[in-house]
Amino acid sequence: MSNQDDIYGDHISHQFNDELASLKEDFLHMGGMVEQQAADAIHALTNGDGELASQVRQKDKEVDRLELEIDEEATRIIARRQPTARDLRLVISVIKMVADLERIGDEAKKTAKLAMRLAEEGQAPRGYVEVRNIGRHVGQMLHDALDSFARLDSEQALEIIREDARVDEEYQGAARTLLTFMMEDPRNISRCMSVMWVLRALERVGDHACNIAEHVIFMVKGEDVRHASMEEAERVVGGP
Amino acid sequence: MSNQDDIYGDHISHQFNDELASLKEDFLHMGGMVEQQAADAIHALTNGDGELASQVRQKDKEVDRLELEIDEEATRIIARRQPTARDLRLVISVIKMVADLERIGDEAKKTAKLAMRLAEEGQAPRGYVEVRNIGRHVGQMLHDALDSFARLDSEQALEIIREDARVDEEYQGAARTLLTFMMEDPRNISRCMSVMWVLRALERVGDHACNIAEHVIFMVKGEDVRHASMEEAERVVGGP
Repeated sequence: MSNQDDIYGDHISHQFNDELASLKEDFLHMGGMVEQQAADAIHALTNGDGELASQVRQKDKEVDRLELEIDEEATRIIARRQPTARDLRLVISVIKMVADLERIGDEAKKTAKLAMRLAEEGQAPRGYVEVRNIGRHVGQMLHDALDSFARLDSEQALEIIREDARVDEEYQGAARTLLTFMMEDPRNISRCMSVMWVLRALERVGDHACNIAEHVIFMVKGEDVRHASMEEAERVVGGP
Repeated sequence: MSNQDDIYGDHISHQFNDELASLKEDFLHMGGMVEQQAADAIHALTNGDGELASQVRQKDKEVDRLELEIDEEATRIIARRQPTARDLRLVISVIKMVADLERIGDEAKKTAKLAMRLAEEGQAPRGYVEVRNIGRHVGQMLHDALDSFARLDSEQALEIIREDARVDEEYQGAARTLLTFMMEDPRNISRCMSVMWVLRALERVGDHACNIAEHVIFMVKGEDVRHASMEEAERVVGGP
């Protein structure tokens, strides 16, 4: 269910409409950037590409800059336009979600840092299959979360919240696998610890995608489903 | 330097003043609660107190509820009072900081969960000295961050940002110690991993305290020092 039309339809000021559209666009631009950062960090890790990892670390500064800019933009809209109801929900949600994007950027940076360390050590890969799988999963969640925001699609957002439980299971399984590698041979410990931190970072990316999805539901439905049960969230969205 | 007087002094509406004061108070109430949660979680862990750990996990629901309430309260103030300038900075900062408090609550809950697991396993403690030390350090940072908010004291806030680098060093040192325990005897691995997650959770508490401090500087000085260098933050605060 797409609600993108009615959110802009009823403003007297065209300029206000433009400002809200621009805020959305800037948020999605930043979202696209952190999505790429996360994908590049995982690619750098699993391919031992130190150069790409270094680029990810550099580019995090740009992500940080965008966070500040979007916060300023949102604050300016509140001060000048005094939005209420649905518009205010949009602006405040962007202020909340931009922090999630910045943290996803941080997790990508951490992953890139660990990728560089692992590339230098240059031993046999351990747990890379798990990193690739979970990386692909949370990457898709983030992509869908941004898409659900772009289309203000609360049902798609609900699906992301469902996925989060699956990622948690995958993460637990992967952590157990790595623990086994560590116990088999203490020489694996240091290396496996690095991969463990990467898995944790990816699991956090999934959490942040989930937070974004919860805000999308709030924007569309006006009800806050953070900390709610899955059943409660389903009721709010009025899903299948 | 305390700035608490002038933030309320110039409103025509007494009720608006009351609403801002109440928002601050509710934030500090939630802050006090997560401070206690973090302290209890560490105590539960280092004393093997499963009962206390269970209480911390239960109480996290209350923390979550406060997050939603304060967000609603802040949104209502924006919609009704249309604050600008310094007042708007206060309200938006509360919206940002309340997410940090909720995450500190989450880290306390994670720590409590690990405390219960470690209490059940009942083996010799490893790394508990480190947990206690870092726990005390980040607990103090959180306390000071809330205090700097209560008094709108940007110099105290700056001190917390300085502390964060020290906590990171302590964390790195503690992680190395645990890695050594793991390599010495593979039977330590599972247990040391749990303690490692606790250390990471505590390090995150320090990060969130630091975020709160950055928002206090923003509220007082009107300049955003997130992602700024220490020198830049010092310039903004105009400290020694």
